[in-house]
Amino acid sequence: MSEKFTKIKDLPMHDGEEVLVGAWIRQKRGSKKIAFLQLRDGSGFVQAVVSLDEVDQATFNIAEHIKQETSVVVSGVVQENSRDSFGYELSVKSIQIIGESNDYPITPKDHGTDFLFEHRHLYLRHLKPYAIMKIRNTIIKATYDFFWNNGFTKIDAPIITSSAPEGTSELFPVKYFEQDAYLSQTGQLYAEAGAMAFGRVFTFGPTFRAEKSKTRRHLNEFWMIEPEMAYTHQEESLEIQEKYIASLVQAVLDNNQSELKMLDRDLDVLKKYTILPYPRLSYDQAIEKLQAANFDVQWGDDFGSPEETFISDQFEQPVFVTNYPKAVKAFYMKRHPDRDDVVISADLLAPEGYGEIIGGSERDTDFNYLEKRIKEQGLNPQDYSWYLDLRKYGSVPHSGFGLGLERVITWIAGQDHIREAIPFPRTLNRIWP
Amino acid sequence: MSEKFTKIKDLPMHDGEEVLVGAWIRQKRGSKKIAFLQLRDGSGFVQAVVSLDEVDQATFNIAEHIKQETSVVVSGVVQENSRDSFGYELSVKSIQIIGESNDYPITPKDHGTDFLFEHRHLYLRHLKPYAIMKIRNTIIKATYDFFWNNGFTKIDAPIITSSAPEGTSELFPVKYFEQDAYLSQTGQLYAEAGAMAFGRVFTFGPTFRAEKSKTRRHLNEFWMIEPEMAYTHQEESLEIQEKYIASLVQAVLDNNQSELKMLDRDLDVLKKYTILPYPRLSYDQAIEKLQAANFDVQWGDDFGSPEETFISDQFEQPVFVTNYPKAVKAFYMKRHPDRDDVVISADLLAPEGYGEIIGGSERDTDFNYLEKRIKEQGLNPQDYSWYLDLRKYGSVPHSGFGLGLERVITWIAGQDHIREAIPFPRTLNRIWP
Repeated sequence: MSEKFTKIKDLPMHDGEEVLVGAWIRQKRGSKKIAFLQLRDGSGFVQAVVSLDEVDQATFNIAEHIKQETSVVVSGVVQENSRDSFGYELSVKSIQIIGESNDYPITPKDHGTDFLFEHRHLYLRHLKPYAIMKIRNTIIKATYDFFWNNGFTKIDAPIITSSAPEGTSELFPVKYFEQDAYLSQTGQLYAEAGAMAFGRVFTFGPTFRAEKSKTRRHLNEFWMIEPEMAYTHQEESLEIQEKYIASLVQAVLDNNQSELKMLDRDLDVLKKYTILPYPRLSYDQAIEKLQAANFDVQWGDDFGSPEETFISDQFEQPVFVTNYPKAVKAFYMKRHPDRDDVVISADLLAPEGYGEIIGGSERDTDFNYLEKRIKEQGLNPQDYSWYLDLRKYGSVPHSGFGLGLERVITWIAGQDHIREAIPFPRTLNRIWP
Repeated sequence: MSEKFTKIKDLPMHDGEEVLVGAWIRQKRGSKKIAFLQLRDGSGFVQAVVSLDEVDQATFNIAEHIKQETSVVVSGVVQENSRDSFGYELSVKSIQIIGESNDYPITPKDHGTDFLFEHRHLYLRHLKPYAIMKIRNTIIKATYDFFWNNGFTKIDAPIITSSAPEGTSELFPVKYFEQDAYLSQTGQLYAEAGAMAFGRVFTFGPTFRAEKSKTRRHLNEFWMIEPEMAYTHQEESLEIQEKYIASLVQAVLDNNQSELKMLDRDLDVLKKYTILPYPRLSYDQAIEKLQAANFDVQWGDDFGSPEETFISDQFEQPVFVTNYPKAVKAFYMKRHPDRDDVVISADLLAPEGYGEIIGGSERDTDFNYLEKRIKEQGLNPQDYSWYLDLRKYGSVPHSGFGLGLERVITWIAGQDHIREAIPFPRTLNRIWP
């Protein structure tokens, strides 16, 4: 049946024609002689005008009594209307009710966040979630486009793992038949194995962190993109990272003008994020700036949200903070050639206080050093024996990074909370629906 | 550093030029005056010829003693060689060793399957896994191309769920802070919520089944694509399914000629799978055919592997088996308008004995019927209250299907066992590496 329907987004191509639309009633208003039905069909939104001058009383009665989220098949004529934000409306000839809707719980009045996410399966139909999910779809597509156009092979990392790359404290345990297992926190180590086989690879899948934090930047289940590149030093990786981020912003600007408008997102601000290169600031320089601004931080501290926001506020673009202290970073990061206290790493901080969106580094290539670091961090080298094999058999310089999909969506869509950026968020107190 | 290297796959564009390649030694052979090094760099494979007529003794000594999987930077001149399967070789000028490799475990001799998968992180570097993963990459890309080009929005389903769409017996339990949770077996119910908001949606992510089966068709962690379409009846869904499958086969034919050759896959067989439409056979007809061939099956039985293979052997293309008995299918499948014993469903069986690759149906739209079916199947309606909401508020005819990525890869790549089709397989006894 869908083939006989015209999609709302395509209505401008049918100006003056009579079309059939399969849709739902988003809202309605009206008087005794005219009813305005706001239709949505998943491709867009349009106003349908039902006038007693044009339809019989029975059809008008349907329009007058129709309830929010009723599904309908509407026939009507597409008409330009410059006062409408979409630019077109539908002059209705007939309405057929497909599915009733009584007492739809999400009414035009304000609801609390908990209520909306308790009804996420319905809330997705509403303007804000709709706009954000369309932007999410664009960012996913632009991610694939970028990596496939640049010669990367997708190598999926496993979700169920027997060991714990970054320590066990933030892992969700899974009972895997008779074995203890965990949900993967990162696919990076697997991506490194992939890079040794395929040169340039990326993972793109869900990852899990059992953090008990309830901040607006944390989800317990989120999607990560983790590219890994053999024969690649950090500087080349940074260039790829900034090109990738700029391509995401550009794709949203190209494909989601109407959604950005629904979200009141400032296009001029976004456009600045497409200008390359992004500034680079060493960790040492960041510490100096923070101390000069009277932040209570010492060299060696990791940055929290206030520090990241202060640093990113110094720039109008995302900023790379490079070469963090070895002590606050993961065991696999490459030693600096001239200094023992920092590693060849970079975090990319988003502007406007959105915090870290990428963490990356060059990876150390030396078996003995990595084995020592694993032990120093209290991890079990046996859990990493397969990973260490990558340094035994043809180790090469290589670099990679991880991007948190929902953090980038939250930033580009200009949202306050990361739970808005995923269809069905999993947070400390929510695994429903 | 990678920007200064020429990728092996691009060597034909540099005929007669001197290039630099960053690679690994796959194999070597030679005599006292000439050594042949098989190089791989993740983009392809090439033979490097090291001749004492062209290089000094020191360079030749490196080549003579170099070991399998040593990483190297090689400079040399690209030369056409019609006797070589790649058509080009590299006449070496210098070799620099980047990373040594001693006692590489996967030698040119035969190894058992367990050994190879115990070393999967290294085994991915070898010809067969390389070829299959390149085909996997193509199929993933072709999947996204197909759905995005046809107006679908990607709506990711959650992995951690509090309820159990298809019963609890085959679920992996997860401890989610203080709550009991499960790993998702399917994203379909979430996709249905998505379809009511976005019209046409698809999920594409990992799913989990705690089946204790050890057959060559089962993984415990596998990737599924689950499209769901509002205002769409089953016949239109079948047309989309067959177009989608044909597009996957065509994409592999277009992009993976050399990989199909590595795997000895018959191209003419694959080409038949791009011809549409695919045959349709009702379940009733399938039972008749099976009984006529003396299979011990009764109307109402589900099909096992021998039955599926027999049915698919009647055709040279994938075949839809339609309208299965209600009793063997999930609660949400739509009732047949004229018969109470079957549902509006179809499984797509792959040729050559590869079994079911798609399961799909039209979904029932009636709240009361679905609630009754949920109870009849021993499930708890409370667990499905959000799903049932989709029938309360603007229910519409809709259809969808689920495709098992690794089954399709196994079939298109012509492999014997599904564990070959995923980078790091999870089976009953394997969650390592």
